[in-house]
Amino acid sequence: MAVSHIAFPDLVALLEAIFVRFGTSRQVAAILADNCARCERDGAKSHGVFRMKGYTDSLATGWVDGRAEPVLEEAAAGFLRVDAQNGFAQPALALGRDVLIEKTRANGIALLAIRNSHHLSALWPDLEPFAEQGFIALSTVNSFACTVPHGGQSAVFGTNPIAFAAPTRSGEPVVFDMATSSMANGDVQIAAREGNQLPAGAGVDSNGNPTTDPSAVLNGGALLPFGGHKGSSISMMIELLSAALTGGNYSFEFDWSGHPGAATPLTGQLIILIDAARAGGAPFGVRAETLIDEMASAGVKRFPGQHRFAARKRSDAEGIALGVDDLNWLEALAAD
Amino acid sequence: MAVSHIAFPDLVALLEAIFVRFGTSRQVAAILADNCARCERDGAKSHGVFRMKGYTDSLATGWVDGRAEPVLEEAAAGFLRVDAQNGFAQPALALGRDVLIEKTRANGIALLAIRNSHHLSALWPDLEPFAEQGFIALSTVNSFACTVPHGGQSAVFGTNPIAFAAPTRSGEPVVFDMATSSMANGDVQIAAREGNQLPAGAGVDSNGNPTTDPSAVLNGGALLPFGGHKGSSISMMIELLSAALTGGNYSFEFDWSGHPGAATPLTGQLIILIDAARAGGAPFGVRAETLIDEMASAGVKRFPGQHRFAARKRSDAEGIALGVDDLNWLEALAAD
Repeated sequence: MAVSHIAFPDLVALLEAIFVRFGTSRQVAAILADNCARCERDGAKSHGVFRMKGYTDSLATGWVDGRAEPVLEEAAAGFLRVDAQNGFAQPALALGRDVLIEKTRANGIALLAIRNSHHLSALWPDLEPFAEQGFIALSTVNSFACTVPHGGQSAVFGTNPIAFAAPTRSGEPVVFDMATSSMANGDVQIAAREGNQLPAGAGVDSNGNPTTDPSAVLNGGALLPFGGHKGSSISMMIELLSAALTGGNYSFEFDWSGHPGAATPLTGQLIILIDAARAGGAPFGVRAETLIDEMASAGVKRFPGQHRFAARKRSDAEGIALGVDDLNWLEALAAD
Repeated sequence: MAVSHIAFPDLVALLEAIFVRFGTSRQVAAILADNCARCERDGAKSHGVFRMKGYTDSLATGWVDGRAEPVLEEAAAGFLRVDAQNGFAQPALALGRDVLIEKTRANGIALLAIRNSHHLSALWPDLEPFAEQGFIALSTVNSFACTVPHGGQSAVFGTNPIAFAAPTRSGEPVVFDMATSSMANGDVQIAAREGNQLPAGAGVDSNGNPTTDPSAVLNGGALLPFGGHKGSSISMMIELLSAALTGGNYSFEFDWSGHPGAATPLTGQLIILIDAARAGGAPFGVRAETLIDEMASAGVKRFPGQHRFAARKRSDAEGIALGVDDLNWLEALAAD
């Protein structure tokens, strides 16, 4: 497959043009294009330009409002809510971000509960900037019913990712972002597209039988949680935090059947922010590096988030590697 | 094995006498006895009277201070710290509990960061009462190096449990409490005592090879995290929250070799409390029940915490079933 290299600002501009062409406001386009281009730049292919079909199909079908104006509510001194008004979650976060930081600085901890929102990207792009500013951040988002709870027979949970970011003294922040299903849905889609099988235990077919065929999982089947009953409990917690606490939908509650092609779940997102400067004892960033060093001494070679920082350096130096077919497809999407 | 039944208050009084006999203050004895008796009552055998040997050995060797007076620090409007002063974590929580609730009511969210503390019990007894008062609670505690990080060769993490509790409208709260190692250490000890094998993937021996022999895990071997790299990332987060944020030790940092028999890890505990009354949309408890109902419709028969509530009902009706040998042993411990 022929590969082309594109500079980060050029990819952002291209994606921005696509979003605008599909009816978003300029502001929403700028936020989503930056987010999506960061995923592609950092090698997070399943949330990079691969997602543009989902974004544009959802916009084209009218399922998500690309011009929604989110509304910020202050529920308490440390408790912010945003009604995304059927728009994307990232502009809702952008609206609440500065106030959330201010409240976290004042109180030591604060949360932002986003509802009526569509989140089709990874969570780490939301959290990494907080860690770079000295905050510990935790976020959960639910998605659409595609994961069978442990002990159950049909899908209730979404892929329900949880992400965590924490600052270090001098290095890159610690950032992990993982689906609490056995796999991320984007990776199942990629496996289906590329004709690969899934690992054992990843999912079930439409009859509830174990399968490693990505198409069987996507067509009437379902994923299983990671880690058995423990992963299932965490996924349940993520539904409660992302939906019951925010006021958003559970993964099984919204009905997008009237919008064929819609790919953006209409749920909620929770972000909890902690001011690492309030830590007891030695500075948090110093202590975080002590843990990283000990893990390295124990033989750990790969740390959460590290592969993204490595990919970012490559992309910054050489440009972002994109298949020529993908680039042509994006340019066609952007054209009038 | 002959079984005797003992009423909850009688078990509390017996355990209290033991703690006092091993040098704790009356207040610490009352808190720990209640905690331990609740575990036994609720069928959480690995944290019930089985743990009394660890408590009394740790006290006898002078490793933990049963008369420590914890010190409360207000770091910010929503950020409390407690220095447990080398005492147990539960009295430190008891000291901060009312202020934590007050701060959570005022701010919507608050945290309590306990350091220099020993936690040998389960986490759910700490959290369940918060959920009964309408709060969502999350807690983490690290322990002692006995779990190999994913991709590593030697133990760095503890069993590092995470617990979560949330209120429902009318029923029992949702409460889960799970080790992020493949098993809880208490369960490995019980398997060793009863001559049972561990499930595949539970741990490694002293040469780093997979084993299902609990003795091999306990004698120079180590546990593995649950759920592969994902569980390992969560365990890493728990070290950062319970140690780096609180100011306590990492699981690999304290040295109890001068106190043979010491069984109580000297680390830290984090508790995050959220006021469910600030939730967006419908009341949180109503929404939590909607999720539970949907999971039940999907065929889930057993919910986190449910087995404990069932055991509690039995114990309240019939008394707590204890082996006669165990009861004799406890009575001997309590005697002068």
